[in-house]
Amino acid sequence: MTHPNRNTLWARTFVDELARTEINAVCIAPGSRSTPLVEAFDRHDDIETFSHLDERSAAYFALGRARRTGKVTPIVCTSGTAAANFHPAVIEASQARVPMLVLTADRPPEIRDSGANQTIDQEKLYGDAVRWYKDMPEPEATDRKLRSLRTTAARAISEATGVDAGPVHLNFPFRKPLEPTHVDGDVPADLDRDALDGRDGSTPYVRTTTGAPELSEDHLRKLADELTVDRGLIVAGPADPPGFNTEALAAFAHATGFPIVADPLSGLRFGGHTRTTTVLGGYDAYLDERVTADWPDPDVVVRIGASPTSKPLRKYLARTDARQYLVDPTGQWREAEFTSTDLVEAEPSILAWRLSQLIRNRPDAEWNQLWTDAEDVHWDAVDAETDAFEGRLAADVADLAPEPSTIFVSNSMPVRELDRFARPSTKARTVLGNRGASGIDGIVSSALGAGSASTDHLTLLTGDLAYYHDMNGLLALGRLGVDATIVLVNNDGGGIFHMLPIEDYEPPFTDQFKTPHGLDFSATEGLYDLSFESVEMDEFRDVYAESVASDGTDVIEVRTDAESSHRVREDLRERVVDQLTN
Amino acid sequence: MTHPNRNTLWARTFVDELARTEINAVCIAPGSRSTPLVEAFDRHDDIETFSHLDERSAAYFALGRARRTGKVTPIVCTSGTAAANFHPAVIEASQARVPMLVLTADRPPEIRDSGANQTIDQEKLYGDAVRWYKDMPEPEATDRKLRSLRTTAARAISEATGVDAGPVHLNFPFRKPLEPTHVDGDVPADLDRDALDGRDGSTPYVRTTTGAPELSEDHLRKLADELTVDRGLIVAGPADPPGFNTEALAAFAHATGFPIVADPLSGLRFGGHTRTTTVLGGYDAYLDERVTADWPDPDVVVRIGASPTSKPLRKYLARTDARQYLVDPTGQWREAEFTSTDLVEAEPSILAWRLSQLIRNRPDAEWNQLWTDAEDVHWDAVDAETDAFEGRLAADVADLAPEPSTIFVSNSMPVRELDRFARPSTKARTVLGNRGASGIDGIVSSALGAGSASTDHLTLLTGDLAYYHDMNGLLALGRLGVDATIVLVNNDGGGIFHMLPIEDYEPPFTDQFKTPHGLDFSATEGLYDLSFESVEMDEFRDVYAESVASDGTDVIEVRTDAESSHRVREDLRERVVDQLTN
Repeated sequence: MTHPNRNTLWARTFVDELARTEINAVCIAPGSRSTPLVEAFDRHDDIETFSHLDERSAAYFALGRARRTGKVTPIVCTSGTAAANFHPAVIEASQARVPMLVLTADRPPEIRDSGANQTIDQEKLYGDAVRWYKDMPEPEATDRKLRSLRTTAARAISEATGVDAGPVHLNFPFRKPLEPTHVDGDVPADLDRDALDGRDGSTPYVRTTTGAPELSEDHLRKLADELTVDRGLIVAGPADPPGFNTEALAAFAHATGFPIVADPLSGLRFGGHTRTTTVLGGYDAYLDERVTADWPDPDVVVRIGASPTSKPLRKYLARTDARQYLVDPTGQWREAEFTSTDLVEAEPSILAWRLSQLIRNRPDAEWNQLWTDAEDVHWDAVDAETDAFEGRLAADVADLAPEPSTIFVSNSMPVRELDRFARPSTKARTVLGNRGASGIDGIVSSALGAGSASTDHLTLLTGDLAYYHDMNGLLALGRLGVDATIVLVNNDGGGIFHMLPIEDYEPPFTDQFKTPHGLDFSATEGLYDLSFESVEMDEFRDVYAESVASDGTDVIEVRTDAESSHRVREDLRERVVDQLTN
Repeated sequence: MTHPNRNTLWARTFVDELARTEINAVCIAPGSRSTPLVEAFDRHDDIETFSHLDERSAAYFALGRARRTGKVTPIVCTSGTAAANFHPAVIEASQARVPMLVLTADRPPEIRDSGANQTIDQEKLYGDAVRWYKDMPEPEATDRKLRSLRTTAARAISEATGVDAGPVHLNFPFRKPLEPTHVDGDVPADLDRDALDGRDGSTPYVRTTTGAPELSEDHLRKLADELTVDRGLIVAGPADPPGFNTEALAAFAHATGFPIVADPLSGLRFGGHTRTTTVLGGYDAYLDERVTADWPDPDVVVRIGASPTSKPLRKYLARTDARQYLVDPTGQWREAEFTSTDLVEAEPSILAWRLSQLIRNRPDAEWNQLWTDAEDVHWDAVDAETDAFEGRLAADVADLAPEPSTIFVSNSMPVRELDRFARPSTKARTVLGNRGASGIDGIVSSALGAGSASTDHLTLLTGDLAYYHDMNGLLALGRLGVDATIVLVNNDGGGIFHMLPIEDYEPPFTDQFKTPHGLDFSATEGLYDLSFESVEMDEFRDVYAESVASDGTDVIEVRTDAESSHRVREDLRERVVDQLTN
C-alpha cells in the first residue's frame, strides 16, 4: 500500500495493527490535530466508527462497550482539554478493570509549553489511573520506527486487556500536514515489507499470549481442604469484564454446598445456573444485625469480584468470625472493612473450576435453610407490598426485561434498588453498572455503549441526576443508531440523601444536597431521537412491557417521591426483620 | 463559637478564613463526603453559594467568575470521578492564569486503595496543572492543626491569585460523622482563641502581601532607550485576569507612538482609550504577506499577554525582522514561532506605566498611516459587504451590545470572527473567552459564571458545538438567576473545518470532521429558563437589540452555512488585500 505522507502512514500502520488484534470499533470526537488517526480509522473497512461530539460521553460510550464485551474500543480526541474530558471514564475504567485505549493527538514537542494554541501538557495526563502511558515518537517512515509502532499497538492492547485490565494512554504528536496530502520524499519506496504492510494475511505483528495466575497443586489442595467445612458462603461482588464463568462458579457452589450471595453486577444473579444453585439476592434487606444475631457464623467466606454494593452485606461479613478468602486475579485488596484473613491471587473462574474437582462437601441443610428462609420472607414481603416505591421499578425491570437483555443500572439509588429488589431468576440478563468509582457521570453513554456492542435488548435504569448529568450522551440514540428503553426514576434531585443523616439538617439539606431542579425532561424528546412518556407508578409494568416489545427508544419517566419511597423501603425491611426475629 | 464535631469545626474554620480574604462565593456540586465543607459554606453569611449538578459545568462557572473579577470562587465536590470532571476547567485555568481553588472531599487514608466505594486516587489528580497541591491532614481539634489550617487557607489564595495565578487543589479527607451532629469530646473547650475563632475582627489569620516583578531603574532605562525608535508595535494578546490597566497601556502607546494591535481578548480593543490611542482590530484580514511585503519592518515589537488569537498576526510577527520583546510577569515564553529576541520578566501594566514616563518618541506618521489605512480599507470593506456571513454576527454584537457589557465568546470560529470583525470602539465592553487551552467545552458555564459576577449585560456568542457541549450549563439560568443574551451561530457541525485542508477529503470530512448533528436546539427552551428564537441573518440586528433591552435570557439562533460564510470571509479578505496592493 502507498501512503501520501509520514503522518498518514504512521496512523494507518497503527490502525492496521489494531485491526489485526481484536479492535473492530472506535469512538471519535472531532478535532484537527487528530486528523491522521481519524482518517486511518475512518478508511479501515473492518472498523466501525462512532462519532461523538462530547469527549466525556465518547469515553463512557467506549467504556460501556468494553464492559459488555471485555474488548477494547479505542477513543480518539484532539489536543487540549478534549483529552481531560476523557478523565472521568479513564478513572472508572481503571477502578473497574475495564479495557480502554486512549489515543490523544498532541502538538509536536518543540511547541509544547510555548503558548501555542490548544497545546497543554498531556504527558501522563491521567496520572496513575492508566496501566501504561507512552508519549509516542514523532511519525517517521523508517523500518525501525514502524516496527516499534506495530509492537506498541500489540503491547497497548495487551496492557489494556491483561489480568489487571484497564486504560492505556498513547499520546501521538503530529505536525502538519495532517490531511492525507502527498509530501514528496516523506515515505521512501524501500521500506521493509513487514514494517510497512504488517505480517502476511491478517496476523498481528506481535501475537500476544497472556497467562492468568493459578495456584500450584499444593496450594490448591490446601485450599480445598480449608474449604471442606459445613458452613460457607460464596460472595460475588461486581465482576471484572468480561465476567465470571457461570458454569465454573455453579460447579464450585455445588461442590462446596455454599450458597452464592450474588451482587446484581456479579453476573451471577440471573441465568440458567440459578435453577440448580442457591443464589441469594435479598441479603441487602435481611442481613440486619437483629436477624443474624442468632445465626451461626459461617466457617468460611470466599469472596470474588469487587467489593459488594450492599452495605448490610459488607457489615455482615465484617462482623462474622469466618475465615474470609479474598480471591483476586491481580492480588489487590478490595475489601475496605479489613476483616478478610486470606488473599488468594488467582483467576477466580479457573480457581472455582479446579476447586470444584477437589471438594465434595455435603451441604449443611440447616445453614442453607437459614438463607433460603430469609430469602422467602423477603421476596414474599416485596410481593405483598402494595405501596408504590422506587424499588418496585427495579423489581419490575428485572422481571419483565426480554431475553436476552442488557440492563444498565445507574449509581446512587438505582443500583441499590436493583440490589435489594431484583429477584434471582433463570432469565438471561447481563446487568452492568459503573461500580468502579460509582459516579453518576457518564451513565447514559455507558449504557448506550453497552447496547451498541450487542443485539440484546437494552434497558437503562437511571435516576434524574444521572440522566441530566449525561444528557449529551443521548445524541448517540439517533446518531449512532442505538436503541434502548430508558427508565427514568425522577424524584427531582438527590433522592439518596434521604438515606443519609444530613437529611435532618435544614438548611443545608434541600438547597445543597437534595438540590431539586424541576427539569422537564420531556423536552429531551425534541432534542434527541426518542419518545418520552411520563407515567404513574402503577402504569409502569404495562408501559415498560410495551416498550421492550417495540422498536426505537422510549424514555419512560416515573415521577416518584424519594422520601416516601425511602420510608416504604425502610418499613418493608422492618417487616422482614420482624418476621425473621419472631 | 461552638462546633458539634471535629469535621464541622475543621470545615467552618477553613471557610471562615477564606471569607476573611476575598472569597464571597462558592460553586458546589452535591455529594455526601463533602458534607462538612458544604455545610460550612452554606451557613456563612458572607458567601453566596451556587449549586450545580454537573461538576464540569460548576468548574467552568467558577472559572468564568474568576476571569471576570480576577478573584477566586472555590469549587467543591465529593470524592470519586466528580473531581475528574473538574479537570478540563482546571487545565484552562492553568493555561490562562485564572485563579481557582479546587476543594475535593476524600475518604480517609486507610480506606484508599482498598476497594471502598467511590474512592479513587485523588492525590495530585490534576498533575502539573495546579500551582499547589496539598493532601490535607485529617481534621482534629488541636491548636496547631487549626493554625495550620488557617495558614493553608491563606497560602491557597495567595498561590491561586499570585503573579502566576492558577488553580490550587486541596484534598480534604473526612471520616463519619459528616453531618453537624454532636460528638462528645471531639472539640475540646480549651482551644486557643485565635486558632478557634480566627484573628480579631475580620482580619485574616495571615495577611498576604504579594509583589510583582519590576525592572530595576538601570534595566528600565536601557529598555526605554531601546524603545526610542521610529517604528514600533504594541501587540496585546489575551490578557491574564483581571486584565491590563488600560490607562497605563494608553500612556505607553502615547509615549512610544506605537499603535496597539489589540486581540479581542486583550481588554484593549474597546473603551475610552481608543478615542486617543491608535488601536488596531482588522489585522487578521490585512496582515497578508502580499500586503506587508512592501511595508518596512517595525524596529521593535512589544508583546504583552498570551499569544494572539490571529494566525495572520502571528505569522506577520514571525517574518518581521523586528526586535521583539516578550513581556511576561512570570517569565514564561508564550510565543510559539520562537522569533522573539527578548524576554522581559515584569508586570506589563506597571512596566508600561514606568516606561511611559521615560520615553518621548515622535510618532512615525508614515508607519502609523500604513496601519490606519489598512484598517480603513478593512472596515469599509466589512461595511460594504452585502452577503450574509457569520462574521457579521460578531460585528453586530460588538456594535450593539449595551454599555457596560460582558461579551463571552466561544472558541473555534466565534473568537476568530470577533477578532476579525469587531471594530475597535470607545464602548464599554469586557470581552472574555477561554483562550488558555482554546477548548469548546465549558463555554456556556464560563459565560454564565462571568455574567454572575457583574451587573453588566452578558452576551454569549457561541457556535452550535460549544452550545451542545455544555448544554448542562444552561441550568444556571433559572437555578442561579443569571441572565444572558445567547447568540447561537448554528451551522450544524464543525464549521471551522471548512478552513482546514481536510475539507477536500471526502470521506472522512463530513462524517468525522464536520459532523452534522441536526439538533433542534429550540427544545432547550422546554428544559431551561430561556426563550428561544430562530432568526434569519438579516433579522439579527433587530432581534439582538430587542433582547439586550429586555430582561430574562434569550437564545437567538441564527442558522448559517459554514461553507458559504467561509467563502464570503475569504472573498472579503481578498478584496482588502487587492485594494491594499494596488
